[in-house]
Amino acid sequence: MRLALAQLNALVGDLEGNAARILARCQEAAAAGADLVLTPELSLWGYPPRDLLLRPALLEAQRRSLEGLAAALPAGLALLVGVAEPLLGEGQPALHNAVALVAGGRWRVVARKRLLPSYDVFDERRYFRPGSEAAVLDIGGDGGRRWRLGLTICEDLWVEETPLGQPLGGCDPIADLQGQAIDLLVNLSASPFGQGKAALRRCLAGRAAGRLGVPAVYVNQVGGNDELVFDGGGFVVDAGGAVLLQQPWAMEDLALWEMPQPPAAGFKPLAATGHGDLQTLAPAGGPVPQQTPDGPSAPVAQPLAASLQPPAPQELLLRALVLGVADYARKCGFRGALLGLSGGIDSALVAVIACAALGAERVRAMRMPSPWSSAGSLSDAEALAQRLGMVCDTVPIAPLMAAFDTALSPALGEAPRDVTAENLQSRLRGTLLMAVANQQGQLLLSTGNKSELAVGYCTLYGDMNGGLAVIGDLYKSTVFQLCDWLDAPESAACRAALGLPAEGELIGEAIRRKPPSAELRPDQRDSDSLPDYAVLDPILRRLIEEMASPEDLVDAGSEPALVERIWTLLRRAEFKRRQAAPALKVSRRSFGTGWRMPIAAG
Amino acid sequence: MRLALAQLNALVGDLEGNAARILARCQEAAAAGADLVLTPELSLWGYPPRDLLLRPALLEAQRRSLEGLAAALPAGLALLVGVAEPLLGEGQPALHNAVALVAGGRWRVVARKRLLPSYDVFDERRYFRPGSEAAVLDIGGDGGRRWRLGLTICEDLWVEETPLGQPLGGCDPIADLQGQAIDLLVNLSASPFGQGKAALRRCLAGRAAGRLGVPAVYVNQVGGNDELVFDGGGFVVDAGGAVLLQQPWAMEDLALWEMPQPPAAGFKPLAATGHGDLQTLAPAGGPVPQQTPDGPSAPVAQPLAASLQPPAPQELLLRALVLGVADYARKCGFRGALLGLSGGIDSALVAVIACAALGAERVRAMRMPSPWSSAGSLSDAEALAQRLGMVCDTVPIAPLMAAFDTALSPALGEAPRDVTAENLQSRLRGTLLMAVANQQGQLLLSTGNKSELAVGYCTLYGDMNGGLAVIGDLYKSTVFQLCDWLDAPESAACRAALGLPAEGELIGEAIRRKPPSAELRPDQRDSDSLPDYAVLDPILRRLIEEMASPEDLVDAGSEPALVERIWTLLRRAEFKRRQAAPALKVSRRSFGTGWRMPIAAG
Repeated sequence: MRLALAQLNALVGDLEGNAARILARCQEAAAAGADLVLTPELSLWGYPPRDLLLRPALLEAQRRSLEGLAAALPAGLALLVGVAEPLLGEGQPALHNAVALVAGGRWRVVARKRLLPSYDVFDERRYFRPGSEAAVLDIGGDGGRRWRLGLTICEDLWVEETPLGQPLGGCDPIADLQGQAIDLLVNLSASPFGQGKAALRRCLAGRAAGRLGVPAVYVNQVGGNDELVFDGGGFVVDAGGAVLLQQPWAMEDLALWEMPQPPAAGFKPLAATGHGDLQTLAPAGGPVPQQTPDGPSAPVAQPLAASLQPPAPQELLLRALVLGVADYARKCGFRGALLGLSGGIDSALVAVIACAALGAERVRAMRMPSPWSSAGSLSDAEALAQRLGMVCDTVPIAPLMAAFDTALSPALGEAPRDVTAENLQSRLRGTLLMAVANQQGQLLLSTGNKSELAVGYCTLYGDMNGGLAVIGDLYKSTVFQLCDWLDAPESAACRAALGLPAEGELIGEAIRRKPPSAELRPDQRDSDSLPDYAVLDPILRRLIEEMASPEDLVDAGSEPALVERIWTLLRRAEFKRRQAAPALKVSRRSFGTGWRMPIAAG
Repeated sequence: MRLALAQLNALVGDLEGNAARILARCQEAAAAGADLVLTPELSLWGYPPRDLLLRPALLEAQRRSLEGLAAALPAGLALLVGVAEPLLGEGQPALHNAVALVAGGRWRVVARKRLLPSYDVFDERRYFRPGSEAAVLDIGGDGGRRWRLGLTICEDLWVEETPLGQPLGGCDPIADLQGQAIDLLVNLSASPFGQGKAALRRCLAGRAAGRLGVPAVYVNQVGGNDELVFDGGGFVVDAGGAVLLQQPWAMEDLALWEMPQPPAAGFKPLAATGHGDLQTLAPAGGPVPQQTPDGPSAPVAQPLAASLQPPAPQELLLRALVLGVADYARKCGFRGALLGLSGGIDSALVAVIACAALGAERVRAMRMPSPWSSAGSLSDAEALAQRLGMVCDTVPIAPLMAAFDTALSPALGEAPRDVTAENLQSRLRGTLLMAVANQQGQLLLSTGNKSELAVGYCTLYGDMNGGLAVIGDLYKSTVFQLCDWLDAPESAACRAALGLPAEGELIGEAIRRKPPSAELRPDQRDSDSLPDYAVLDPILRRLIEEMASPEDLVDAGSEPALVERIWTLLRRAEFKRRQAAPALKVSRRSFGTGWRMPIAAG
C-alpha cells in the first residue's frame, strides 16, 4: 500500500479553503499512485481552531466540506482527515477531536483522540471529550489485501511524556493497540515547534513503534497560526526506531511511502520492517501558494537538503520564526512589514527574520534617534539595512519630545522625568511606527525579547507596539546565540536558502558586541537596571519554564536578594504582558495564551 | 447549629493573607456563637488562581496556611475552607478543587468538586480532576447532636443549567445526595457577577433544595479579581425555594443562620424548614480594610438596605463595576485613577464609576481637545468634573498633531491622512494620559465600550490605553440605559450610598442626548461609519453572546449586507482585542480570557 503524507499549512477556520487544499493534494497523490492520503490533526479546521469550534455554523460548514471531499476524491483513493465530531445530546463538551475516513463517495469517523492536552497553550478539554477506545482501521490496499492501521491523534503518542513534570493522566492509547494485530501505527498531529522537539517526536514514535512491533507514520501540520508555529517534519520510523522517511521542516510537503508487505497475519516480529521504499514527492511547481483576499502569495521557501537528520537547532529555530512571520502576514493579508531599527541586536535579528519571511523589498525600517541615541547605533542600523536591502527611513524624535514636554508641564507641574520621560520616548516612537504602518498598510513587528517582557523592561504602547512579537519568546542570551550563529560561516547555506546575504557577516560584530542599552537617557545601559543577561536569563528560565520558586533558586545557590528582585519584577510586569502582541512561541512556556496568570495577585 | 456565612474578598494567590482574613472572621463568628464557618470556593486562594495552581511552592504555602488555621481556630469552632488538593502519582491534572474541614486542631478534605466548568472564562479541567462521589459531612453542633451536611462546590449546583445552550455533561451531584439523609445542602461558590444571575442562583439553589427536601446555604466570594467581579449575595433558601436569609451584594459580609432542629432522622418532609432564625452580623467596624503594600485601604461601601430582594438590575450592575474598579486599584496598589474626559457618554460613565470606587479626590480627569473637538464637549466635560468634584486638566493636542505631521511627512511622502490621522490623534491622547499616569502613579482607566471593541471602532495604543477597561463589556445601548437610570430619581439612594451627588442629574442631559462622535475629524458622527447602536447592538449580541452566524441573523430578518459588514468588522478587530486591557465582565460572554478566537483565520 502506498501512503501519501500530506504536511499541510491550513488557514484556521477556513473549512472550505482547507478542504480545497486537501483535495488538490489528494489529486497529486492519486496521480503518483497513492492508496491513502494522511493529513494532520484537525486538518479541515487548521490547528488550533479555538472558540471557532463552538460555532454551530462552522460545524455545518464542516459537514458540507466533508461531503464535497467525498464526492470529489479521485476514485480508488482514501483520505484520513482531521475533523471535530459533534456529539448529540451528551452535554458539554460536545465534540470529539476525531479523524474521518473519506473513500468511495462517503465519509465516516474512524478515530477519536483519547488524550486531550489541557496544559500550556492547549485547551482541548474545553472543547472535546476523550475517545474511549483504541481505533483500528481495516483498509484495502493494492491487490485486494487488507491492512490494519492503528490510528492515534497527536497527544495519544505522548503517553510516556511528562509535560508539567508529571505523566499525563488517563489511558495508554499505545498499550490499547497491543494485541490488535495492526500492521502500522499512524499518528496525525498538530505539534507546534519547540526547541529539541523534532528529536523528541521521533523518539516517542520510535518507542511506540517498538512497543507495537510495527512501523509508525507521523504526519504533522506546518505553518504559523498566530503565536504558534507548526514545523512539520513528518516521518516514518520502523519498529526499531530507525528513520525510514523524513519530510522537511517549516514548509508544505507531500511524501509517498510504500508500506512493505507484512508477513502472514498473526506473526509480527519486532524487526519486520525497515525496508520500505523511500520517496519524497516534491509538490508540483514548488510549495503551493495559498490565496488570501489581498495578501501576497506564500513565500517560496527553498527545500531543505534531503537528509534524515534535522538541521542544526539554530536553523530550525530561525526557520520557525521566519515561517511564523511569513504566515502571520500572509494569513492576515498584510502587504509588508515595518519595524523600528535601533542599532541594537534585537531589532537587527527581527529585521533579518522579516526579510527572510517577506523579502527585503517588502520590509521597511525606521530609525528614530533621540538626543540620547549614540552615533554608533545610527550607523549600525543604517549599515544593517543596506546589507539586507531594506528601505530605512529616519525620523528624529527630539522635536516631538519637546512638544510633549511643553504640553504636559502645566498638568504635571513639571516636565516629564525619570521613567515617565523614558516611556514617553518609547511611546513617541511607537506612535510614529503605527502611523506609518497604518498609512502604508504594513504589519508592525514588535522587537522585544523574552527577558525584557519577563521583567517589564519594555514600554506598553511604546516599543511593545506591533501585531506580532517576533522574538518575544527568545531570552536575550538566545538572541545573542542566534545572531552569533547567523554571522558564522556554518549558517551560509541556510542564509542562502532563505534569500539572505550568505557572504560575510549579516548582523555584524558592532551590533553583536555592543553592551545592551535602551538609549533612553545619557549613557544608559541595561546593566544599570538589570543583572547581566548571563545571570538573569537562567534564573528567569527556572522561574518561568520550570515553575521554580524563589526559594528553590536560593536553595540551588542563587543570591537571595537578586532572586527576590527578579521575582518581584516578573510578577509586577503581568499587566504589561496581558496587553502584549502575540509572541511566536518557541520555548516550553511562553508569555502567550498558555501563560495564565492573574494581574492583581498577592 | 449556628452557621456563619463568610462572604469574603480574597487577594488571589495570597494564601497567608487570605488565611489571616479567614481566621479573623472565624474569631468574630466564634464570638457570636457560631458552630461552623462557611467560606467560598477556593477561599484560601481567591478565585480564579489560574496558573498559580501549577506552582508547587504555593501548594506548600497552602499546607502551612491550613496548619496555621488549624492551630489558631477558636476552640469548638469548625471551618469549611476552599483548597486545591494535590493528588500524588495520578498524573495530570494533579489537583482536586476541594473543601477542607478545619476543626479540633486538624484539617482534612471533606468534599471534591464534581462538575468542573471549562467554558467561557473557566478553565477548571486545566487544573482539576473531578471528584467521583457525593460529599456528606457529619458534624457535631450544639448539644452534641450530629448533623449531616451535603457539600457541593459552585458548578455542582448548576447541573440543570445550559451555559452554552447544552446541559453540562457528566454526573448529577444533587441526585447523588438523594437518599443520603442530609439535613442541609451547602454550596460554596465563586460565582462571578452577571446580569440576572442573582435570581438564577436562588432559583438553582431552590430547585436543589426542593429535590433534596432540605434547606440550602449558598456562600459566594465577593470582590474584583482582574476582569471578574464576584458580587457575593449569599443566601439561605428552604426546600420550597423561599429565601430565609440574604447577604448583601458587592461587599464583604458575615451572616449567622441558626439551623432549625430537624425532625427525627429518616423523616424529611418537603416543608420541614422555613423557620430558621435570621440574623446578619455586621462586620465589626464596617467592612474589613485589606492591606496592600502601598495601596489605599478598601473603599468603605455603605451597606445595602436590609432586604430579601435584590436591588434593581442597574444598581447591581453599577455596584459590580464600582467594586471591580475599587478592587483592581487596591489589589494592584494604585493611589488613584486617571481618565480622559471627552464630553461623551462613555467617559462620563467611567468617571462616575471611578469616583464611586475611589472617591472623587483620588480621580483625575484630562480633557485633550483637538481642532475637531466641539465647544459643547469641552464644557460638558468640565461641568461633569465639577459635579463629581474631580480635578480636570486640559491639554490641547493641536501642537502635537502639528509636530507629528512635520515629523512624519518626509517618511510618508505626505501628511498623515484619513484613518491614520484619526488614529494619531487618539494615540497622542493615549500617550499624554500614560505620561501623567506614570508620573503620578495612577491607574489609567480605559473608557471604551463593548460595541466599539466589537467592531474595532477604537484605536490600539490610543483610546484603548489603560490598565482596566471599566465599561468594555457594556454595549453602547447599555451605557445609555445605565446613564439614563443614573440621572433619574430612582437612583438617588444608590448614588448617595456610593458617595455620589444624589440630587439632580449626574451625567446630565447634554451628555446623554448628544449624537455619539469620536470627534476625530470635522463634524464626525459614529453613525457615519456604523449603523445606529439600536440596530448594531442587538446584532452584536446575537453574534457574540449567542454564537449566531450571519446566516442565522439573515434568516431572522436582518439585512444581509448589514450583517455581513458587521460580521467582517467583528472578525477583523480580533488583533485589537488581543491587546486590549482587561474589561470588567458583566455579560455572558465578554472579550476577555473567555473569548478565545484566532487572529489569522478564514
